[in-house]
Amino acid sequence: MPLSREQQAEIDQARGATQPTRRPIAPALEEILYQALPVLDHGFVRVVDYMGDDAAVVQAARVSYGRGTKKVSEDRGLINYLMRHRHTTPFEMCEIKYHVKLPIFVARQWIRHRTANVNEYSARYSILDNEFYIPRPEHLAAQSKQNRQGREAVLAGEEAERVFGLLKKDAELVYEHYMEMLNESDSGEPLDAERSGLARELARMNLSLNFYTQWYWKTNLHNLMHFLSLRADAHAQYEIRAYAEVMIDTLRRWCPICHDAFMEYRMGGVHLSKSGVAAVRRMIAGEKLDQKSSGLNPREWREFVAALGLG
Amino acid sequence: MPLSREQQAEIDQARGATQPTRRPIAPALEEILYQALPVLDHGFVRVVDYMGDDAAVVQAARVSYGRGTKKVSEDRGLINYLMRHRHTTPFEMCEIKYHVKLPIFVARQWIRHRTANVNEYSARYSILDNEFYIPRPEHLAAQSKQNRQGREAVLAGEEAERVFGLLKKDAELVYEHYMEMLNESDSGEPLDAERSGLARELARMNLSLNFYTQWYWKTNLHNLMHFLSLRADAHAQYEIRAYAEVMIDTLRRWCPICHDAFMEYRMGGVHLSKSGVAAVRRMIAGEKLDQKSSGLNPREWREFVAALGLG
Amino acid sequence: MPLSREQQAEIDQARGATQPTRRPIAPALEEILYQALPVLDHGFVRVVDYMGDDAAVVQAARVSYGRGTKKVSEDRGLINYLMRHRHTTPFEMCEIKYHVKLPIFVARQWIRHRTANVNEYSARYSILDNEFYIPRPEHLAAQSKQNRQGREAVLAGEEAERVFGLLKKDAELVYEHYMEMLNESDSGEPLDAERSGLARELARMNLSLNFYTQWYWKTNLHNLMHFLSLRADAHAQYEIRAYAEVMIDTLRRWCPICHDAFMEYRMGGVHLSKSGVAAVRRMIAGEKLDQKSSGLNPREWREFVAALGLG
Amino acid sequence: MPLSREQQAEIDQARGATQPTRRPIAPALEEILYQALPVLDHGFVRVVDYMGDDAAVVQAARVSYGRGTKKVSEDRGLINYLMRHRHTTPFEMCEIKYHVKLPIFVARQWIRHRTANVNEYSARYSILDNEFYIPRPEHLAAQSKQNRQGREAVLAGEEAERVFGLLKKDAELVYEHYMEMLNESDSGEPLDAERSGLARELARMNLSLNFYTQWYWKTNLHNLMHFLSLRADAHAQYEIRAYAEVMIDTLRRWCPICHDAFMEYRMGGVHLSKSGVAAVRRMIAGEKLDQKSSGLNPREWREFVAALGLG
Repeated sequence: MPLSREQQAEIDQARGATQPTRRPIAPALEEILYQALPVLDHGFVRVVDYMGDDAAVVQAARVSYGRGTKKVSEDRGLINYLMRHRHTTPFEMCEIKYHVKLPIFVARQWIRHRTANVNEYSARYSILDNEFYIPRPEHLAAQSKQNRQGREAVLAGEEAERVFGLLKKDAELVYEHYMEMLNESDSGEPLDAERSGLARELARMNLSLNFYTQWYWKTNLHNLMHFLSLRADAHAQYEIRAYAEVMIDTLRRWCPICHDAFMEYRMGGVHLSKSGVAAVRRMIAGEKLDQKSSGLNPREWREFVAALGLG
Repeated sequence: MPLSREQQAEIDQARGATQPTRRPIAPALEEILYQALPVLDHGFVRVVDYMGDDAAVVQAARVSYGRGTKKVSEDRGLINYLMRHRHTTPFEMCEIKYHVKLPIFVARQWIRHRTANVNEYSARYSILDNEFYIPRPEHLAAQSKQNRQGREAVLAGEEAERVFGLLKKDAELVYEHYMEMLNESDSGEPLDAERSGLARELARMNLSLNFYTQWYWKTNLHNLMHFLSLRADAHAQYEIRAYAEVMIDTLRRWCPICHDAFMEYRMGGVHLSKSGVAAVRRMIAGEKLDQKSSGLNPREWREFVAALGLG
Repeated sequence: MPLSREQQAEIDQARGATQPTRRPIAPALEEILYQALPVLDHGFVRVVDYMGDDAAVVQAARVSYGRGTKKVSEDRGLINYLMRHRHTTPFEMCEIKYHVKLPIFVARQWIRHRTANVNEYSARYSILDNEFYIPRPEHLAAQSKQNRQGREAVLAGEEAERVFGLLKKDAELVYEHYMEMLNESDSGEPLDAERSGLARELARMNLSLNFYTQWYWKTNLHNLMHFLSLRADAHAQYEIRAYAEVMIDTLRRWCPICHDAFMEYRMGGVHLSKSGVAAVRRMIAGEKLDQKSSGLNPREWREFVAALGLG
Repeated sequence: MPLSREQQAEIDQARGATQPTRRPIAPALEEILYQALPVLDHGFVRVVDYMGDDAAVVQAARVSYGRGTKKVSEDRGLINYLMRHRHTTPFEMCEIKYHVKLPIFVARQWIRHRTANVNEYSARYSILDNEFYIPRPEHLAAQSKQNRQGREAVLAGEEAERVFGLLKKDAELVYEHYMEMLNESDSGEPLDAERSGLARELARMNLSLNFYTQWYWKTNLHNLMHFLSLRADAHAQYEIRAYAEVMIDTLRRWCPICHDAFMEYRMGGVHLSKSGVAAVRRMIAGEKLDQKSSGLNPREWREFVAALGLG
């Protein structure tokens, strides 16, 4: 359970109050506004603010004075067209802000997306909570032999036991020592009134990368979809994918037409190389191709067959 | 009058409707939402959406679950601190979207600010209106002799008459020829049923830089203040400053505490060089300095005297 | 001829001198360094500096201490892999700087690419030359009936004559009046010693959008390829495509392996939607599809057939 | 000693070879190109490539065909002017690329500067070395009582001993367990041929934040100076300041005139608020001010006195 009673009370209070606005509204997103959507063992994603909706994309594409079009079917046609033809700027006209709690090693991948605004909890300034990520048994995977940055079968039996034991014990140990170096007890009192306590900005270096941090993260709809297309992809590490999947659901609630276009043209789409196009053309004309005759190298051929589901 | 009756009706309709939201509200900005605030002879600035308020800056700086603080005085103290110490990221948590109508030569300066999202009216796709900028007599200034990119005294008499005549006549002429090349009449009918009409993407090149264009322009609070600090500055060209000044007023309505901090620390502030600091120290100690003894070169000394109002 | 004798002399001088460096070198690009490659009637592209080469992409992908790999074949395999899998960051490690002379309406499209560094010739500060773009007869196209932002057949006969006449005469006229308002003659002397002359920052607004401007434009290899993929595309306006095509040639000289990967995976590639993939699969399995049975709407079907060359 | 013999050999080889180029050269930077400049206990900064020099800033500001000016004194005057008046775009025309080895907690601060290109060593793909940061005794500081994100006196005696012991022992322990989970020995052989070994992307989460990572980091001169002005500042954490200081020295070798302007106008400069300017004016006029009469609040007054050295 990622939230303290006090935090939950603050969220409930924010959810309780509504005020009138002249701005566009995304009703399905308002429903879950401020709620902590759980991810991994202690993490969450909360939508804390947003700006614009499907119609705002249309309005910007048309540079209109009002809502763009009135008919949903026209909006859908235009949004599909924009998505298909990489007219990305109208999607930049919508903005969303998340509060995310996530392990530090996930935060390190996430922050590589530069086109976002971020305020992270500062461990120079404050003390981190004693919360760290331990994978669930079904995610404790062995190193892949083929793919140097991938996983394979799930670890089991004694090896799994040993790994769980090490991860848990080490995290507990480094946190205990973190507090000892800070000279801090759980109650906030010094452990030892005679000691000074190490500076927070130094003590934090003893924590391991599975400890949780949190941040406010704000981005526009175009950059959000780019983030999701990379991080909800099957090649992304499971732990960041878990966040991306929850966020795709918030996208669906926010801008349902853009969401559908995103799933159709981006997530479900396939990019063919020039040689791939030539191979497809020959296959449609009735030729039977294998890797050799395809003009693709073995790796490309495997990817080609998988992408088109020709298996 | 920059708006057609139809446009004004669309704006009135948008202004008429309110809906409940759980998001934070900026009441003084809601008052003017969607309204066209006039700038120059045919231009305007309209706030068409926004996200966040003063409290959102505080909330992000604290990475809090609720509203940050409850007391306005604490919010003010923190916002002043953030502004003074260049902690810029919390200001990135608020976002605003404008619809702006502006002369093309102003748009060319404006677009140099890259950290914004833009959708401009497309003259490849549509026909531009017959609206162009003519300065008011008090802004028709002579070239400065000292400052190669500045103005001096206002032109008057015959020279002014001649300039007004040229600007107006040339704009009318190039627009007439634009429509002729397009084979378009005001009514939307072809001028000549036998002719094809030049492609819009080509015909537009005949228009001059004082013709009006329009765009949706969206940016965050930090980047907005950076834009305003440069474009509301006395060294900015009058025509873009006119827009910046109207936008400072929208900033005041949106985030009044940030606005005050911006005026105190940025617009009203002065940056001293290392040598400037040394000169100030000596002057406070009672020394009488002139340019020679100050250690500053003549130009720096002039800027120093002006910035500190020591004239 | 876009260069004055003095400018050509400066370029020749820069080209004449070489110095030793420990940095990587792109020999084929050094050959044309500083040369003005002509585009349109008065424009050019000049490569004025660069940083990195194909091996720098490999080196960054490997975070290596030396050159990455030694064998060109391994470099090629890795670069193809990075391009195919959208691992874009290693391509950001190379940088190129151009000096470009281009019509203002082209500059207005170009500047929408925000991830570049730009210094433009300032018409606030200096006087623009009397050079404007007039299309060649084969590029004077009629407005497309189908595609609102496209061209169709070339204009001919009287209509073409009339358009050329208007474009030329209007450009000459607005320039003459620009100089008159500035009170400047070609020799640099005032036209009339009694007059002040209008400020440059105002007079420039009388010029039309086909006048030439120039800028230094610097970007990294990833952003360059993104720019080229959009601007060398068949849907881009001819006038900017003319620049992109010359720049693809500079890419080939600079990073030949990246160039080949770019042509294979980006320029020559095709993106299929989820429904497009399903259609391809059925066609490869031997089904004969038409628009109705394909699951694609008419427009998507036309694009699908064209992209795969199934016509 | 941060480099293996093999790495040093690769560096020596790169340093040994020079080739002729037509590009501008920064001779003092070429001298140290590729060399590992040590920082902290195991870190380094290496300049691995650069583009442009002082003259390139001038050339871009002038949009010239040749070198801008010929005289160094004119270059200096122009560069000082650009720096003083925040004309930042010409400084974006120079680019530099570093290879940096740094503790992960420093990397987490550093990466917040978004306007740079980065390729980091991947612990999903490869195994991290057994190298971690331990502060030198003079940097093992206590938590500041006044400043929640600052340090105070150095820890000494038993408390220091205890902290060093914990930091070192915990780092050794988590690394040993990291290798055990990976089923890797130092020789590269599996520890146990029966076990699969945990995926690298998971095992890395057991490492603590003082372990070293490394990356290629490339940015332009403007963004570099912005980074340095924040990270070489006295308020920055010592561990990142140590990197910034070494990098200021590389700036001096690269663009000495820009370096001097940066030290004069940015690092050595002071920003006064509107109220601060008013206070300075009164003090120069001979008034004796204290906090109360100054119009500044206590904290601002302390900062004001310190910034102007009025203590």
